[in-house]
Amino acid sequence: MADETTTIVIMGATGDLAQRKLLPALFELRCNAGCPEDLRVVGFARTELTDEAFREFMWKGVQEFSSLAIHKHEWDDFAQHLFYVTGSLDEEADIAALGERLNALEGDSGSANRLFYLSISPTLFEATLTNMKATGIADEADGWRRVVIEKPFGRDLASAQALNRTVHNVFREDQVYRIDHYLGKETVQNLMVFRFGNTMFEPIWNRQYVESVQITVAEEVSVGERAGYYDQSGVIRDMIQNHLLQILTMIAMEPPSGVDADSLRNRKVDVLKSIRRWTPEEAVKNAVSAQYEGYLSEPNITPDSTTPSYVALRLYVDTWRWQGVPFYLRSGKSMSDKVSEVVVQFKQPPSVMFGLAHDTDLNPNLLAMCLQPDEGAHLRFEVKVPGQGMTMQSKDMEFHYDDAFGEQAIADAYERLLQDALQGDPALFIRSDHIEEAWRIVDPLLQAWESSSNHKPERYVPGTWGPAAADALLAENGHAWITVCGQHDDEAG
Amino acid sequence: MADETTTIVIMGATGDLAQRKLLPALFELRCNAGCPEDLRVVGFARTELTDEAFREFMWKGVQEFSSLAIHKHEWDDFAQHLFYVTGSLDEEADIAALGERLNALEGDSGSANRLFYLSISPTLFEATLTNMKATGIADEADGWRRVVIEKPFGRDLASAQALNRTVHNVFREDQVYRIDHYLGKETVQNLMVFRFGNTMFEPIWNRQYVESVQITVAEEVSVGERAGYYDQSGVIRDMIQNHLLQILTMIAMEPPSGVDADSLRNRKVDVLKSIRRWTPEEAVKNAVSAQYEGYLSEPNITPDSTTPSYVALRLYVDTWRWQGVPFYLRSGKSMSDKVSEVVVQFKQPPSVMFGLAHDTDLNPNLLAMCLQPDEGAHLRFEVKVPGQGMTMQSKDMEFHYDDAFGEQAIADAYERLLQDALQGDPALFIRSDHIEEAWRIVDPLLQAWESSSNHKPERYVPGTWGPAAADALLAENGHAWITVCGQHDDEAG
Repeated sequence: MADETTTIVIMGATGDLAQRKLLPALFELRCNAGCPEDLRVVGFARTELTDEAFREFMWKGVQEFSSLAIHKHEWDDFAQHLFYVTGSLDEEADIAALGERLNALEGDSGSANRLFYLSISPTLFEATLTNMKATGIADEADGWRRVVIEKPFGRDLASAQALNRTVHNVFREDQVYRIDHYLGKETVQNLMVFRFGNTMFEPIWNRQYVESVQITVAEEVSVGERAGYYDQSGVIRDMIQNHLLQILTMIAMEPPSGVDADSLRNRKVDVLKSIRRWTPEEAVKNAVSAQYEGYLSEPNITPDSTTPSYVALRLYVDTWRWQGVPFYLRSGKSMSDKVSEVVVQFKQPPSVMFGLAHDTDLNPNLLAMCLQPDEGAHLRFEVKVPGQGMTMQSKDMEFHYDDAFGEQAIADAYERLLQDALQGDPALFIRSDHIEEAWRIVDPLLQAWESSSNHKPERYVPGTWGPAAADALLAENGHAWITVCGQHDDEAG
Repeated sequence: MADETTTIVIMGATGDLAQRKLLPALFELRCNAGCPEDLRVVGFARTELTDEAFREFMWKGVQEFSSLAIHKHEWDDFAQHLFYVTGSLDEEADIAALGERLNALEGDSGSANRLFYLSISPTLFEATLTNMKATGIADEADGWRRVVIEKPFGRDLASAQALNRTVHNVFREDQVYRIDHYLGKETVQNLMVFRFGNTMFEPIWNRQYVESVQITVAEEVSVGERAGYYDQSGVIRDMIQNHLLQILTMIAMEPPSGVDADSLRNRKVDVLKSIRRWTPEEAVKNAVSAQYEGYLSEPNITPDSTTPSYVALRLYVDTWRWQGVPFYLRSGKSMSDKVSEVVVQFKQPPSVMFGLAHDTDLNPNLLAMCLQPDEGAHLRFEVKVPGQGMTMQSKDMEFHYDDAFGEQAIADAYERLLQDALQGDPALFIRSDHIEEAWRIVDPLLQAWESSSNHKPERYVPGTWGPAAADALLAENGHAWITVCGQHDDEAG
């Protein structure tokens, strides 16, 4: 018996996430020697399966979704560490049986660690955690106990607070790993290096030089099969409250004293706390909601739904660094392109030097950080157009991850995050106070829209960049939406 | 008769420059409608030629050296405006005959302008200008008179001052266009746009953020056929005093109030005046001279010559902006590559954030402006290496002129400069005080080396980046030479 053994318990093990993401990520971690030698995975779900059938089910997922070249003999070796327990999350006896199986598998190891991965419906949270408490399955004994929780973390501030209380009834905050897979993305991680591993950008990363910041997370797909769930949540809960506000904190944060979990997360929460709070009346003036044409005819959508499939926001971060600089956020489905990017637009340079009229605007510089799919960065600057005179044109200096590191370089976010959870580093997971502050920002808007029978979302044509009202929102400040990533330099003009 | 007619008089019309550069540039200017409709070119040299033979001679040059697709009928039209006068520069009667021919060609035009282009040996300067004065050929009458002068502008401060006096005996300073073809290069022009057409760079363009500046103008060729001339001048006179100091002024200058000639040139001269002055003793401590192995065996080189074919310098610009930031200049023949570039190296970011040891150096950012041959810019920055942890690597954001504007976009420097001279814009030509200040900077070094029988240049292997002593010079400040341009990102590491 090893001195230490670790078990990942996947609650909801027959779901999509386990098959598509978790098992492929764990298998790759193991192949890359990134997880403990003596690791086992125990699946738990209602579907009746044997260990063997579970292994077969997961093998399908790994073959389909792993980016590693699969060696069957490696899988066979790994599969020996997969086990399955059939049961219901809301049946205390079933959770107790899971506990017994865990004990049996762990044997008399020196220290037996358990990572519970809750890949379950929000409706089962309360019951599951109550049963975990009752059965003692998550009680710390010889080894550590941690829990990974998938979003949604509530649907507003009150429900998030309730959820946090439920979780804290079983786990201390330092045992809780709330996952936002955006934080595991290489390019999101790279935002930290971009800002704090370089000398060039930080001196101009403030209200003196920055005109505005835009964060776009656009999806090309429509609501599709998730329509029923989606219509109950909408883009604010699905994207803005978590992913886009996360990215915003990384762009706007002060330099942390280190990359340890609390240094980093304190600075992020500082940003959220500094975002100017709206009354519901203010909220609607700084936001645009919209549905793509055809949304209401999708299957499983309430016919008179006002749930937005697109939202644009104007936020202000009231810090010494950022006061007065608008942060524009937008996210939507059925948009022109699948793209996640941050565009920092700088102020215009003085225009008179080159003999231009005083009121001639030079193009402002911008820095685009491309998170997906064409991971990299563009720095748009003015160059002299060849030829007589001093005509200028905007061109991009470009960096692309795949040019620099190869097509396969970027690992899946889950692989990174699972390893961090196994190693006990919560830096890339979301702390409870972050969750709650993020809800405090969007709650007034949700209240304004969801409590008003007058609220009618705008319409936009599927495959476009959203409604005209979103352009008008930026035009109020003399700005316009910018899309850089995925474009090539010769289109930039 | 036109109301206005312009004649370019090329003194030394059968030389290389006229055939390779001037006539192709004038022909292209005409094809691009960039020169006056009623323009004629009169060549003057000792070789006996008819107008027709001169046209034939120039047609060869245009065919060989023009980058335009040649249409013979356009040339035939242009060639009607070419004329030739045989004579000696040092014969007053010959210059008088040239004047008569000019009068005849101009006829009774309303206003007849003359641009004298002196493409002649320095030994003939005094005599030529004396004869121009005596014959009145350059006296202002109905039209303007200008003179374009090719380098060398003296071989030290005293001779440059004497040359300026000679020129000013015939022409006012505002009639004098001293040409440094580097200033006509698109990428050198673009240094102005880079700095002052963008918001991003100027805030960090100072001693607070810049660690050092390197200017490299390297030639791959050896002295070749120019050996005799070269051995009398050396790289300081051939490259440093003119081209490299010009580039330095554009990197270090304060923002001019406009791009008019005097605003611009005043700011450049300010820089030269601020360069810390050496005693001869200090000069040799801040410089390295070297000859490539085999230099002394080249034909037409004095066997015991100490003329450097390579020089590296460390200069300081003692302004509020730059004090303490070393400017490293190097230029040489028989080097590893033909490349002209400016590398601005920024200071290192604080290293502790990413959990690195306090004494671990992060790579500093750098901005490379590539003047030739791969015109463009590289911004070298740190990115996160994909994978677990926070490993960083230097990568380049890149911009290349030929990607952005096409292979043929960059016009020849002479075309730009000739047009400016015809239009009366001396902004890209060198003012007399600039010339003299530049000599004041290098004179102590020339004196130290040329007056000392102890001075022995270092040796370097042809095809390398110069002698070890040049590396040692930078190592004194903890720096190293950097070559960026022409490299591709995957070599940057």
